[in-house]
Amino acid sequence: MSGGGKLIGIGVGPGDPELMTLKATRALAQADAVAFFAKAGKASHSRAIAAQYLRAGAIELPLSYPVTTELPKCSAGYRDAIGGFYDGAAAAIAAHLAAGRVVAVICEGDPLFYGSYMHLHARLAPRFPTEIVAGVSGMAGCWSAAGMPIAQGDDVFTVLPATLSEAELARRLADADAAVVMKVGRHLPKLRRALAASGRLARAIYVERGTMADAKITPLAAKPDDAAPYFAVVLVPGWEQRP
Amino acid sequence: MSGGGKLIGIGVGPGDPELMTLKATRALAQADAVAFFAKAGKASHSRAIAAQYLRAGAIELPLSYPVTTELPKCSAGYRDAIGGFYDGAAAAIAAHLAAGRVVAVICEGDPLFYGSYMHLHARLAPRFPTEIVAGVSGMAGCWSAAGMPIAQGDDVFTVLPATLSEAELARRLADADAAVVMKVGRHLPKLRRALAASGRLARAIYVERGTMADAKITPLAAKPDDAAPYFAVVLVPGWEQRP
Repeated sequence: MSGGGKLIGIGVGPGDPELMTLKATRALAQADAVAFFAKAGKASHSRAIAAQYLRAGAIELPLSYPVTTELPKCSAGYRDAIGGFYDGAAAAIAAHLAAGRVVAVICEGDPLFYGSYMHLHARLAPRFPTEIVAGVSGMAGCWSAAGMPIAQGDDVFTVLPATLSEAELARRLADADAAVVMKVGRHLPKLRRALAASGRLARAIYVERGTMADAKITPLAAKPDDAAPYFAVVLVPGWEQRP
Repeated sequence: MSGGGKLIGIGVGPGDPELMTLKATRALAQADAVAFFAKAGKASHSRAIAAQYLRAGAIELPLSYPVTTELPKCSAGYRDAIGGFYDGAAAAIAAHLAAGRVVAVICEGDPLFYGSYMHLHARLAPRFPTEIVAGVSGMAGCWSAAGMPIAQGDDVFTVLPATLSEAELARRLADADAAVVMKVGRHLPKLRRALAASGRLARAIYVERGTMADAKITPLAAKPDDAAPYFAVVLVPGWEQRP
């Protein structure tokens, strides 16, 4: 451990820069270096959200994923490529930490809730001081944009990836009071069938680009097609027994 | 609907005022009236969090719960008392909205995620314009304070109230990759048994006052007693197959 070096995982929220926390903007103002993930060849979403709060002269460390959907996730090729990528990214950040710099990793949503930052944290937290700045999650941005109370009282709330099988989605949707289904994309036709089988289709809300000016928010049953981007979500609100 | 009146549900985050969003502080600066919940005879947590961002001269509308744990939740007495309380609170706010005022309801955590604001929203949204300012959830504050990645990739994540039966807790804990158990309080002995039965006790983290200076964060297995306040949570991190 070296004097002054610190890793800060900073949640910058779901997309609207106004949904950054005061703590996030203040931590960014003190960071010597700022790291952010991006798809290969694309601009980083988290950097775009935080752009106006980066310190002038801060070292920028773009971390571009080597693969995204080109290889199946269960393949050895994918695991090797992505594991090597995180090892390399962690080593690059470690060099700055060892030199005594404060390195902020800016993350969409919350850093420890389905975020890539976790891969860096797991590699670096054993060796360097770390701090987490919690953020507003993407799903909270979605149900807020929809004005849709999601869970209340003793509701059981579940987050499901749309990658599950149709039977498993239906079983889990029927077993929860409230749910958010993530990574909808090409799984929408399967998800519709699972929602229908679990009796939840009538309550389901489809949300695309939830906190953007061009958000699309509609009852899923009223959506005429099955086109959906990877990051679309479906909300199934609980709280069925309102007082 | 009347000119200019608007209801804003504002999440002020888990406790640290620095975890308020920029949007929350700006919305508060423009609110004509600010409403907040509190236990009867106690100071309001959400008002304490937001205190320095209230507009000078804003009308304050404290909403004191008539009952909390004195009556069983399933009793008709509880439902009548709490239903009547929300009706009265909504009516008081409606009068300000009808007079064209902007009324902010400040909420710990996120307004639409297990929050009392939802009871006002359900009563007022059909009659007045509303806006939601998403907030950092209490549970995100807890896993961030613990530095504990909670869910990753295709993990199924579940929020469970500790009020469930031991068998139901054990079944649901075994069925999820990651979980947060809320409202722990006097249910801790039962929760321990359910975690043991589901094979999750060794991973469970006990968190009390997660984002406060006097936070208590410890592996549950190492906690020597079963004393726990109502708002304590237990985190069961997922992400068991790290690359």
